[in-house]
Amino acid sequence: MATTFELGDFVLQGGATLRGAQLTYETYGELAADKSNAIVYPTWYSGRHQDNEWLIGEGMALDPSRYFIIVPNMLGNGLSSSPSNTPPPYDRGRFPNVTMYDNVEAQYRLVTEHFGIERLPLVLGWSMGAGQTYQWAVSHPEMVERIAPFCGSSRCSYHNKVFLEGVKAALTADDAFQNGWYTSMPTKGLRAAARVYAGWGFSQAFYWDRLYERLGFSSLEDFLVGFWEGFFLDDRDPNNLLTMLWTWQNADVGRTPGFNGDTKAALASIKARAIVMPAEKDLYFPPEDEAWAVQHIPNAELRVIPGVWGHFAGNGINAEDTTFIDTALKELLAT
Amino acid sequence: MATTFELGDFVLQGGATLRGAQLTYETYGELAADKSNAIVYPTWYSGRHQDNEWLIGEGMALDPSRYFIIVPNMLGNGLSSSPSNTPPPYDRGRFPNVTMYDNVEAQYRLVTEHFGIERLPLVLGWSMGAGQTYQWAVSHPEMVERIAPFCGSSRCSYHNKVFLEGVKAALTADDAFQNGWYTSMPTKGLRAAARVYAGWGFSQAFYWDRLYERLGFSSLEDFLVGFWEGFFLDDRDPNNLLTMLWTWQNADVGRTPGFNGDTKAALASIKARAIVMPAEKDLYFPPEDEAWAVQHIPNAELRVIPGVWGHFAGNGINAEDTTFIDTALKELLAT
Repeated sequence: MATTFELGDFVLQGGATLRGAQLTYETYGELAADKSNAIVYPTWYSGRHQDNEWLIGEGMALDPSRYFIIVPNMLGNGLSSSPSNTPPPYDRGRFPNVTMYDNVEAQYRLVTEHFGIERLPLVLGWSMGAGQTYQWAVSHPEMVERIAPFCGSSRCSYHNKVFLEGVKAALTADDAFQNGWYTSMPTKGLRAAARVYAGWGFSQAFYWDRLYERLGFSSLEDFLVGFWEGFFLDDRDPNNLLTMLWTWQNADVGRTPGFNGDTKAALASIKARAIVMPAEKDLYFPPEDEAWAVQHIPNAELRVIPGVWGHFAGNGINAEDTTFIDTALKELLAT
Repeated sequence: MATTFELGDFVLQGGATLRGAQLTYETYGELAADKSNAIVYPTWYSGRHQDNEWLIGEGMALDPSRYFIIVPNMLGNGLSSSPSNTPPPYDRGRFPNVTMYDNVEAQYRLVTEHFGIERLPLVLGWSMGAGQTYQWAVSHPEMVERIAPFCGSSRCSYHNKVFLEGVKAALTADDAFQNGWYTSMPTKGLRAAARVYAGWGFSQAFYWDRLYERLGFSSLEDFLVGFWEGFFLDDRDPNNLLTMLWTWQNADVGRTPGFNGDTKAALASIKARAIVMPAEKDLYFPPEDEAWAVQHIPNAELRVIPGVWGHFAGNGINAEDTTFIDTALKELLAT
């Protein structure tokens, strides 16, 4: 059962105050008496804490018998403070913009104020979770010992922004969206956003090889409806999706206070040892971008996840990719 | 000035008859007395004949002082028979499905009946023009001596279909679309489709390098509005776009009568010498797909257009890519 940490009046980087802000999180394992065994593993775009559980388990790197794993829900995901659960006046179409920095500050307060933790052996995450991972290493370099961002980036690239513009435009093209003040779900827009996303989430080769059949879908159209439309219709509130999309599009560790937009300087300030794992055929977080990031981090290794699963290599649905990631995490934690 | 060829009652592969069908085309150069110098160069998705002119000129492979170049407008592009210009009952939302095969049959009638041409030294095209090129070589193997499909394919891949589903879903999410019976332009849907397309048309590296600035756009957003939205709002009728999109999604030379869906057998039947030119970073016609096609064509060479312009390497907006294509065409025509 997830728990909620009260953030109180939480001042966001953009200037708004989210009064009575909440950070909902789940933990796995026990915090050691000396508080030395905590790992932070933030969620991804529209993901919830339970969606991270595939990488946690006995015998895995994230072994709850050894580590205390904290999975904080991203602001906007519907469990932590979000357009869908915030009372007026900051509700729904008026929910303020939230940055990666804001997310990490909320998590930092949970980790330090609530748990009294001073060091983190590891921060890791997939996709936007990787973005939060980078942000942790920049916001709190003295605290984060290791990072493992996979299928994500330290800064949203221009191309990635454009991909997200397509998702956003499709979602909001539905008149029912009513600029965020919908009275019924804009399902046409949600379904359209799902179809746009479908082309990006998996690689060309994944589709060529019809690997959706391995996931239990009987045809291409069945995958588009059953997996993708189903995903977007699974209680994913449009304003929530747009809040997280804004966070994603505006992600840049260079916007951490003190760096004045200088992404390279922010990366250079990272003290954590890093294993950075893009997926070979990720269409919106391509390996080249992470090769660039690794060049600027003092102690980082690029380790590309091979294969055709694209962005979803980091989602736990392909055993080979999961093993690849878990192996890297074990190695990272051992050093 | 483009000319219109009257197709009369044109029976489509799907069974409908398009009465009073028209094929609008442009020609460049003079047809030789022995009719041996004709090249067919079909248009691309939503393109018009004049959009092909960048590859035609004195000193280029497609030299009008030497060749007679016919550029037929694809059915559905607004100049040849299309939803937007067909009278009831087959107008607008009721325009019938048109295949690549249908397009080539219409062009074949122009070339043979109107011009009396029996041999074509070359058929070529970009994107859906490449699809028509492949179709020419399969439909009329005895007639086509050479083909140069660039940034296109002989069969729409599953992934390519999914990309197009995103474009279609975004366009039709606009309530103003009214299932094709719009009374005012669904511009919100057109702009959304443009934003979806934007991520696919150029590569990740193109955006990373901000090459849109070289095209005269002052920012990423200026490129999205000025280039992409402007493109889709430039008299591109939604029903026309959806007609061509259907043609594209259902493209497969294996569906040529006689091949019974067997794409490989259709490719194997090609007698033309081929130089197949995918672009290195084309996101919806990746080089792997064309490597596959080339394996099945008896006399074909794969020649990948290097660089970061992605699909638009074949659109004439980057001089290096144009030179690459023109050089290959010269070589092909010389053998």
